Amino acid sequence: MGNYNQIAGQNIERISALSDGIFAVTMTLLVIDLHAPANELIHDNAALISALRDILPQVVVFFMSFITLGIFWVGQQTQLNNLASSDRDLTWLHLLFLVFVALVPFSTDLMGGFIEYRLALLIYWGNILLLGTALFLTWRYAMTKDLVKPELSPVLEAGIERRIIIAQSLYAFGAALCVFNTYYSLGFIVLVQINYVFAPRFFGLNKL
Amino acid sequence: MGNYNQIAGQNIERISALSDGIFAVTMTLLVIDLHAPANELIHDNAALISALRDILPQVVVFFMSFITLGIFWVGQQTQLNNLASSDRDLTWLHLLFLVFVALVPFSTDLMGGFIEYRLALLIYWGNILLLGTALFLTWRYAMTKDLVKPELSPVLEAGIERRIIIAQSLYAFGAALCVFNTYYSLGFIVLVQINYVFAPRFFGLNKL
Amino acid sequence: MGNYNQIAGQNIERISALSDGIFAVTMTLLVIDLHAPANELIHDNAALISALRDILPQVVVFFMSFITLGIFWVGQQTQLNNLASSDRDLTWLHLLFLVFVALVPFSTDLMGGFIEYRLALLIYWGNILLLGTALFLTWRYAMTKDLVKPELSPVLEAGIERRIIIAQSLYAFGAALCVFNTYYSLGFIVLVQINYVFAPRFFGLNKL
Amino acid sequence: MGNYNQIAGQNIERISALSDGIFAVTMTLLVIDLHAPANELIHDNAALISALRDILPQVVVFFMSFITLGIFWVGQQTQLNNLASSDRDLTWLHLLFLVFVALVPFSTDLMGGFIEYRLALLIYWGNILLLGTALFLTWRYAMTKDLVKPELSPVLEAGIERRIIIAQSLYAFGAALCVFNTYYSLGFIVLVQINYVFAPRFFGLNKL
Repeated sequence: MGNYNQIAGQNIERISALSDGIFAVTMTLLVIDLHAPANELIHDNAALISALRDILPQVVVFFMSFITLGIFWVGQQTQLNNLASSDRDLTWLHLLFLVFVALVPFSTDLMGGFIEYRLALLIYWGNILLLGTALFLTWRYAMTKDLVKPELSPVLEAGIERRIIIAQSLYAFGAALCVFNTYYSLGFIVLVQINYVFAPRFFGLNKL
Repeated sequence: MGNYNQIAGQNIERISALSDGIFAVTMTLLVIDLHAPANELIHDNAALISALRDILPQVVVFFMSFITLGIFWVGQQTQLNNLASSDRDLTWLHLLFLVFVALVPFSTDLMGGFIEYRLALLIYWGNILLLGTALFLTWRYAMTKDLVKPELSPVLEAGIERRIIIAQSLYAFGAALCVFNTYYSLGFIVLVQINYVFAPRFFGLNKL
Repeated sequence: MGNYNQIAGQNIERISALSDGIFAVTMTLLVIDLHAPANELIHDNAALISALRDILPQVVVFFMSFITLGIFWVGQQTQLNNLASSDRDLTWLHLLFLVFVALVPFSTDLMGGFIEYRLALLIYWGNILLLGTALFLTWRYAMTKDLVKPELSPVLEAGIERRIIIAQSLYAFGAALCVFNTYYSLGFIVLVQINYVFAPRFFGLNKL
Repeated sequence: MGNYNQIAGQNIERISALSDGIFAVTMTLLVIDLHAPANELIHDNAALISALRDILPQVVVFFMSFITLGIFWVGQQTQLNNLASSDRDLTWLHLLFLVFVALVPFSTDLMGGFIEYRLALLIYWGNILLLGTALFLTWRYAMTKDLVKPELSPVLEAGIERRIIIAQSLYAFGAALCVFNTYYSLGFIVLVQINYVFAPRFFGLNKL
C-alpha cells in the first residue's frame, strides 16, 4: 500500500534538531524586548541609570522565561532521548508543543509590559499550562503506541508523567495567587522554577 | 577532471541542518509580528482586553502559518529521509524551497494586517503554491536522477508526488473562494490543514 | 605540555552546526526588512498595490542576497565536507567568514534602501569580496596544513581555489559597472549568480 | 527507583545543538542593531556617508562582540568535546552560561549607544565576567563529577581552568581602565581578544 503516512515523521533526530532550533531562537528572542534606551533621550549617567531601572521588570521576566524554556527543553529532550522510534502523529504532537514554545516571547513581552495586570499573568500561566499539556500528551501517546525504549523501567515512564502533573499543579496554585496580587504569583512561580532547576531537592520533591 | 560540481552539495545532513534552522527561525519569527500592545496607551484591564482583541486576526493567522510550515517541514523531511544521496542541483532545488519558506513571515504579516483584502490572500496562497511547486520539483528531480533510497517502493514514491498535487488543488480551490469572501478562503484553508495534521483520516483521504 | 590550543577547535561538526545556524538565521533575517505596509495608512486595494510596488526593490535585493548566501553556503560546506580534521586557527578563519555572513542582512538592507547610490553598491560588493577572501583563506590554510581529506585529488583541491578567484573577478567587474549605473552592476551580479546556481553551464564555465 | 533526575539532561549532543543554535542566533542578532539609515532622511551621497559614520561606533562594538562570542563558543565547545558524559546539573550550568550568551546583544546595544558612559562599559564587562564565571563552573563541576574523558591529561584539564582565570583578569584590568576613559578600556579589551584569536602567541601567553 502506498500510504504516505507510514513513512512521514519517523525521524527523531530531525524533531530534535527542529526543537533545538526553535528553543534557541525563542530563548534569544526574549532579549529583543530588552531594548537599550534610545540615546537621544539620555544625557547623563543619572538618566541612564533611571532608564535602566525602568526596564528592570522586563529583565526579571526575561530570566523567568529563560528558566521556563530551559525546564521544558530539558523535559522534552528527556522524552526524545528515551524514544525508540517516532511516527507521524507523535511528530505533530511535538509540533503542537513547539507552537506554544514559539509563543513564549509574546506572553513574556506582555507580562513584562503589564506586570500588575492579572490578565497578563493569566495569559502567561496559560502558556505554561499549554506547554505542560502538550508535553504530557507527547509522552502519553509515546507510551500508548510503544514508541518508548524498552529498557526504560515502567517506574521511570510513570515518573515523567507524574512530574509534569505536579509541576503544573504548583504553577496553577501560583497563578491562583493573583487573586491577591500578581507579584505573589510571580514570586511563587519563580520559587517553583528554582526548585526544578536545582533538581527537586527541596520540599522533599526529589523523590518524585 | 577537476570538476567542482561533482563534489559540491552532496551532503544530505547539511541540507537537513540548514532546513531545520530556517524552519525554526521562520516559525519563531511569525510571533515577532504579535507585538504586545504598547503599555503607555493602556490604563486598565478593559483597554488591555480590547487591545488584545485587536490582534486576534494576527493570532489566528500565526497559528495557520505555523501549521503551514509544519506541514511543509514534515513533507520535506520525509523526502530527505528517503534520499540515498544528493547532488549540487538537488541542493539548489532545496534552497529554492527554503527561499519560499523564508518568505512565509512576510506573507503572514501581510495576511494578518489586511485580512479582508483579496490581494493579501492571493499573495499568501501564492506563497503556498510556490512551496508546493518547489517541493514537487525536488522530489521529481530526485526520482529522475535515482537519488531515492532503493528500498522505497514505487507506490510510495508516486504517493509523495500525488499528495502534493492533491493538497495544492485543495489550496487553489480555497483561494478561489475569495471571489466571495476572504474569510471563506481562510476557513477552507484551515480545514484542509487540520485534515493534513490529523493525518488524512477524514474525507477518505487517508488512502492517498 | 598543557597547551590548550592543541585541543581547541578540532571539531568539524560543531563548525558545520554553527555555520548552518548562522546561515539559517541570516537567510531568514533578510525578510525582516520586508515589512508589510502599516495597515492604518492603507484603505483600498489600489493603495495596497502601490505600497507593495514601493517595496519591490527590497524584494529583488532579498532574492539576490538569498542566492549570494546560498552560493557561499554551498561553497563552505563543500570545503567542510572535504576536511579530514580541523584545528584552532582554521576554526577562527571560519568564524571570520561567518562574521561577514552575519553582515549580509545589513548590507542588503542598505542596498535595498539606497539602490541608486554607488556607495551602497560598493559596500554590498565589499561584503561579497570579504566573504570570498575569507573562504579563500580557509581553503588555502587547510591545504597548507594538510587538513584536507587525502582522497581529494589535487586537481579538485586547486579547483576550489580557482573557482573563488574567477567568481570574485566577475563580481569585481560587476561592481565596476557602477561607474555607469548601479542597475548595470546589480543586473550583472544577478547574472553571475544565476550562472553559478545552474551550475556553471553557460559561458563554458562548467569546466572550471 | 523512579528518579527522573537520573535520566534527564544526559545528552551532550543536544546541549551542543542548543548552544550552537543560541550562539548562531546571538551572533546574527548583533547586526539587527546596525540599522541602515532611513532613506527618507537621506538625499545625497554626502548625507549617506555621514549617516554611516554615525553608526561607526556600533560597527566597532559589533565586531568586538562577535569576537567575544567566538572566543566563548570555542571555549565551550572545547569543554563539550572533552566530556565523556553529562548529567542534569551540568546541563543546567550550561543553560546558565547560555542565558549570559543571550544577553550579549543587549549589552552590546547598550555599549554601542553609550560608548562614553562608564556604566555601559561596566555592564558590558559584567556580561563577560558572568560568561567566564559560568564557563569556569561548568568545567569545575565536570572535573569534580568525573564527567571528563579519561584520556584528557590532568595538565590540560587544569589548563582550561587557568586560561579562563587569566583571560578574566585581563578583562577586569581593561574594565578598570575606565577610571580614565572608556575608550582605553575598549582598546585594551580588543587587544586581549585579538591575542586570544591569534592563539596566545604574543606576550609569551602561548604557554598558558
